[in-house]
Amino acid sequence: MARKVIHVALNGVTGRMGYRQHLVRSLLAIREQGGIALDDGNVLYPEPVLVGRSEERLRAIAERHGLSRWTTSLDEVLGDPDIDVYFDTQVTSAREDALRRAIAAGKHVYTEKPVAAAAAAAFALAEAARAAGITHGVVQDKLFLPGMIKLRRLVREGFFGRVLSVRIEFGYWVFEGDGIPAQRPSWNYRAEDGGGIVLDMFPHWTYLLEELFGPVRAVYARRVTHLPRRWDEAGEPYAVTADDAAYAVLEFDGGAVGSVNSSWAVRVNRRELLEVQVDGTHGSAVAGLRNCAVQHKVSTPMPVWNPDLPDPLDYQAMWTDMPDTMAIDNGFKAQWELFLRSAARGEPFRWDLFAGARGVQLAELAMRSSDEGRRVEIPAAGSTVPGGTA
Amino acid sequence: MARKVIHVALNGVTGRMGYRQHLVRSLLAIREQGGIALDDGNVLYPEPVLVGRSEERLRAIAERHGLSRWTTSLDEVLGDPDIDVYFDTQVTSAREDALRRAIAAGKHVYTEKPVAAAAAAAFALAEAARAAGITHGVVQDKLFLPGMIKLRRLVREGFFGRVLSVRIEFGYWVFEGDGIPAQRPSWNYRAEDGGGIVLDMFPHWTYLLEELFGPVRAVYARRVTHLPRRWDEAGEPYAVTADDAAYAVLEFDGGAVGSVNSSWAVRVNRRELLEVQVDGTHGSAVAGLRNCAVQHKVSTPMPVWNPDLPDPLDYQAMWTDMPDTMAIDNGFKAQWELFLRSAARGEPFRWDLFAGARGVQLAELAMRSSDEGRRVEIPAAGSTVPGGTA
Amino acid sequence: MARKVIHVALNGVTGRMGYRQHLVRSLLAIREQGGIALDDGNVLYPEPVLVGRSEERLRAIAERHGLSRWTTSLDEVLGDPDIDVYFDTQVTSAREDALRRAIAAGKHVYTEKPVAAAAAAAFALAEAARAAGITHGVVQDKLFLPGMIKLRRLVREGFFGRVLSVRIEFGYWVFEGDGIPAQRPSWNYRAEDGGGIVLDMFPHWTYLLEELFGPVRAVYARRVTHLPRRWDEAGEPYAVTADDAAYAVLEFDGGAVGSVNSSWAVRVNRRELLEVQVDGTHGSAVAGLRNCAVQHKVSTPMPVWNPDLPDPLDYQAMWTDMPDTMAIDNGFKAQWELFLRSAARGEPFRWDLFAGARGVQLAELAMRSSDEGRRVEIPAAGSTVPGGTA
Amino acid sequence: MARKVIHVALNGVTGRMGYRQHLVRSLLAIREQGGIALDDGNVLYPEPVLVGRSEERLRAIAERHGLSRWTTSLDEVLGDPDIDVYFDTQVTSAREDALRRAIAAGKHVYTEKPVAAAAAAAFALAEAARAAGITHGVVQDKLFLPGMIKLRRLVREGFFGRVLSVRIEFGYWVFEGDGIPAQRPSWNYRAEDGGGIVLDMFPHWTYLLEELFGPVRAVYARRVTHLPRRWDEAGEPYAVTADDAAYAVLEFDGGAVGSVNSSWAVRVNRRELLEVQVDGTHGSAVAGLRNCAVQHKVSTPMPVWNPDLPDPLDYQAMWTDMPDTMAIDNGFKAQWELFLRSAARGEPFRWDLFAGARGVQLAELAMRSSDEGRRVEIPAAGSTVPGGTA
Repeated sequence: MARKVIHVALNGVTGRMGYRQHLVRSLLAIREQGGIALDDGNVLYPEPVLVGRSEERLRAIAERHGLSRWTTSLDEVLGDPDIDVYFDTQVTSAREDALRRAIAAGKHVYTEKPVAAAAAAAFALAEAARAAGITHGVVQDKLFLPGMIKLRRLVREGFFGRVLSVRIEFGYWVFEGDGIPAQRPSWNYRAEDGGGIVLDMFPHWTYLLEELFGPVRAVYARRVTHLPRRWDEAGEPYAVTADDAAYAVLEFDGGAVGSVNSSWAVRVNRRELLEVQVDGTHGSAVAGLRNCAVQHKVSTPMPVWNPDLPDPLDYQAMWTDMPDTMAIDNGFKAQWELFLRSAARGEPFRWDLFAGARGVQLAELAMRSSDEGRRVEIPAAGSTVPGGTA
Repeated sequence: MARKVIHVALNGVTGRMGYRQHLVRSLLAIREQGGIALDDGNVLYPEPVLVGRSEERLRAIAERHGLSRWTTSLDEVLGDPDIDVYFDTQVTSAREDALRRAIAAGKHVYTEKPVAAAAAAAFALAEAARAAGITHGVVQDKLFLPGMIKLRRLVREGFFGRVLSVRIEFGYWVFEGDGIPAQRPSWNYRAEDGGGIVLDMFPHWTYLLEELFGPVRAVYARRVTHLPRRWDEAGEPYAVTADDAAYAVLEFDGGAVGSVNSSWAVRVNRRELLEVQVDGTHGSAVAGLRNCAVQHKVSTPMPVWNPDLPDPLDYQAMWTDMPDTMAIDNGFKAQWELFLRSAARGEPFRWDLFAGARGVQLAELAMRSSDEGRRVEIPAAGSTVPGGTA
Repeated sequence: MARKVIHVALNGVTGRMGYRQHLVRSLLAIREQGGIALDDGNVLYPEPVLVGRSEERLRAIAERHGLSRWTTSLDEVLGDPDIDVYFDTQVTSAREDALRRAIAAGKHVYTEKPVAAAAAAAFALAEAARAAGITHGVVQDKLFLPGMIKLRRLVREGFFGRVLSVRIEFGYWVFEGDGIPAQRPSWNYRAEDGGGIVLDMFPHWTYLLEELFGPVRAVYARRVTHLPRRWDEAGEPYAVTADDAAYAVLEFDGGAVGSVNSSWAVRVNRRELLEVQVDGTHGSAVAGLRNCAVQHKVSTPMPVWNPDLPDPLDYQAMWTDMPDTMAIDNGFKAQWELFLRSAARGEPFRWDLFAGARGVQLAELAMRSSDEGRRVEIPAAGSTVPGGTA
Repeated sequence: MARKVIHVALNGVTGRMGYRQHLVRSLLAIREQGGIALDDGNVLYPEPVLVGRSEERLRAIAERHGLSRWTTSLDEVLGDPDIDVYFDTQVTSAREDALRRAIAAGKHVYTEKPVAAAAAAAFALAEAARAAGITHGVVQDKLFLPGMIKLRRLVREGFFGRVLSVRIEFGYWVFEGDGIPAQRPSWNYRAEDGGGIVLDMFPHWTYLLEELFGPVRAVYARRVTHLPRRWDEAGEPYAVTADDAAYAVLEFDGGAVGSVNSSWAVRVNRRELLEVQVDGTHGSAVAGLRNCAVQHKVSTPMPVWNPDLPDPLDYQAMWTDMPDTMAIDNGFKAQWELFLRSAARGEPFRWDLFAGARGVQLAELAMRSSDEGRRVEIPAAGSTVPGGTA
């Protein structure tokens, strides 16, 4: 059993997600467990190289975790032949350029979403990556939430029969920021800073829905700004220029319909912040981050509308939670293990830059749909992305 | 105190709704309580005249309830100057013609919805009624459900502040009819018989939403047939030709957005068959047929998305049911009392044929939206209905 | 970013409150967090100077916490031009004189309540502080209890509509001291030592009520000594000469009425030791130290008095706890930060010696009311305190 | 065993309380159980004679219950030597005159409260009754509520030791009448019609407190009109001229203090609509209509005020409900049995017209206290009522 070291440049590691989820809870956790077992009996062991803009903060992180290498120069790492993988978790506006340079330098690339601000650019990146023959991947963490893993299991088991419809309710009340400080940063509510709930959430919906129910072929969306005035981190009022809610109707290749509501201006009368209800000919499920309740065809009650009497049926009691029969690892770490294995073998990765580009595309088309007041078809991956993996 | 008798011809009284809700639980109940007290100290006392196609069944009903008059001839009742009110609860296809004749005969008319199969015909009926100077009204029973009355109280109290969004989930699983008989009649699933969930439910959504939140100005809808094959009352399979679900996004004059899902192919993971969630700047509510739970701004929790830990908040426990502070009468009867009072005074009725026509119109435009894949504007009542009361 | 040191003389730091709440949990905690961020980008950093009567105990405290300066001489600190702030947490009887000298020495003063034993003396201190142009403040810690912060939020949000009434129940059973030692010191029960529940609690009620509901304009109080005999710290019986309970009816400028009961001879049948119920036209709240339950107008049940049947309503279940949407800092520390910022800028402090004097005044007038058996008007701040800030 | 019939004239029996509580649930119930067993082995059997203003309604009641005698003439019954007892449950304004005539006619008198609108008149009636040598009594139904019976038992058992204080909270939200109809009649809110919560409730507090804790010797009250505008039975707005809340501090002969709040503008955050907390040296109790929870000295917790931590004590869990060890009869009926026994024997009744007059007196003095802003002494019964029974 040999230890095979893989060098990973992490760009943006001083940010909250980059530091906590990707460095500490993924790469360092993999090191602590001794690496990743490969099929050939060897072990893959990641060696992080920290990249960022503040040398002081990079050094502090490195020292805290006993890491030996950090730099503020992207050129340095991209020019270093020892570096195997480039990972990007910078702010969105800096991402496209850095990814392009990493691909050109022949590194395997792994990145947070959205991969670019526009679909054309995102697809161009994917094309470049394919042309370069590297392994490329995009973080799709929500696939690894326990509730979503249970839902994938139901799909795989054929529990639903034919899927008829999918209802997604996502959101909660983000405080305006007067009196009580808001729980999200103010840039989320400024279009000029890359804010907006469509750009934030539709890339998530894309990979989640595609993975579970196949390609989305059409979208209608209505995006709105429910609260036009908020207060920022300094307590100052500002005008909201980005959408804070979107109401969409999606259509799947298989004929199923999706009703997808995303909102930062809704009060939660659900069990979890995200709720996905799937109805099929044979059964239904309601999944959240953690839980997944099911109702099989044979357990379906027969309601009758009767305004004269209180309804005697307790509908929610007729669903059963799926048990936690699997130990579920942190989603970010699980996906890192899969990606590093693919990169070490030089093989394609399942959730690649094309998948990431489709996420940007759906957000873009949803916005166009809202602006033009019409249903927009999603180009088949094949036509936009000749030779795509989807 | 004098008793003033008002003669009401009931056409379609042998049907389930006509018999039970309109005759027994409305008109006969009003007779039992001694009539309807008028402001002038007199009492209005309804005298039903049963109209239908089966003399035998009409006679049986009359005898069971001690009524003296019934007929199979619509001409007879319309030609009788003693008859004050004509009420129609026939099958949809027979309604338009009967209403037109009743209006021409100078009767006050009250009717079940939909008033006609097409909006143009429905508006024409309303125009004719207005020209005739009669009192005209359409049954809008869902307004009188306890949960909806509570919701109306919230609107009136200004509980919501500015209304941002409305989510309606309506529906349940209608059994296919093989094995277990379906709980709805097969004509509901045949377009040629006036079936379909859009035609059935959108007239309800129209008056409910209009009453609560003001006019709907635009609609996008996607209607589908989730289950293309069902089994009829005889156990025979048939092809479903009508829509059995519709996913709509509505827009209100005031800027609020509505997400309205209606389905006969959904399993109920809600408290009630109908659930209306309203979110406003100051508070939210989730109302059903009976209950209405509220969450005020000051009771709104501050969720934070954290995939690492189970969410510590019990969201549904943070809502409070509105207490039952009013004795609520049967909605059909309550509306009959209001209509008969208006008719006795010869005054306009609040929910008139124009309101009924707007219901047919929304259904019609929702279908057009679905067919054309675009958002459809609702003509302002004024332009479609010159001089309309809306 | 510069660090600006502010020197704070703490007089009375060997007492329980002075040591724990003011030194350890406020000033030292502020040092640990790196100081107080100012608007100009600088940081204010407090340097405590310990003052007291026992050199030995002062030294012990200084050594335990790495502080370099302590003294038993008040004159020394007041004569030292480096000292910016004088803070007083001595026994009440020593306070007035020390504050007068600190004001004369030109120090900013911050103090525990009551600021003096009599209202005239308290107002004289406030006048002297204003004439000296210093920043002066009085500890009003109960304003910063989580339950009271929630209540202030409700007032600010306009949740109550017009406030009608306020009910305060405060107190618990203080053991007599025979058998089980009492949980409060015996001087609290001796008038000659400054004891008595009116003098202890009415200054708290003053600032709390004033902050929430505006000025109190009249008071009726009945103070009593429920338990005339207690046992002291040595187990010796003594005669109680101070009041141990007071029953008051207050009137606010706005027309609201307050029922305020304070007692050390009551058994607690409440959720918390302090309970404040506020009823308004639009809603009500019951707040304690931690919790604040609300009932909005629309959630108000309609009780009917019926002696024949058990009441079917569960009244307490119809209230909803406000969620903890804010991280709430220790109240003493929070107020220290606000005061030090004001002192550093040389600006007036919101809760100043006039506010402290009004607290002493309400206690004094409540005692007079009890002795004379009549409602006593509270002089408008303006007439008693010419040019007052109130 | 002989049956001894006692003839009781019931004046005001067409009212809700007169009919339901006094006739049906008291006198008719006594007849149904076979009468009242006397000490001499005989049975006392009441024969009601209905008196009222509407012959039609009297006849209807008589027929419904198989009674043979009714009349609209008070003179007729007072002139009939067979009539033993006169009972009055008319509207307040008609009561004084009818009672005076009944006393003059030598009937035993039993009556609802308040016995007159003014204390002087009430005492005059009592004097007249004593001079006439009849048995006279006043309904004091709240004494017979299960919770109050339990409380009386605690007093009798010496559970409290020395009583220190009594807190009464009574009331609930009476709806304003716009939107939702009010649950109390509008005359309750008009002073000119005998409305007001002081006049309604203070007579109850008088007998309840006197019975439990002895005579009240002083009262301070502040009565207010929280809601100046209400809507009447016809939905019309009217100006409220009577008090709808009163905040009082009472003093008892024994030195105990009472805090007594009565309000029709308070939201109920208690277990029951009426809550009486009694604290004594040895134990405490909180009683309502039904329940009575106790905490003995040895079960009393020792709370310590600590703002840093949530209070670990669950105070309400430390009280124990008294069990229902007695079958408790309807209070109205129980008191009727006692009165009829006394009347049959020609003996004085425990709760006589002097007790009734003291109730009117306390209400009157509470109003005077509120108007004059001072504590008012209650004249010892002896001085006002020479030779009184108190």
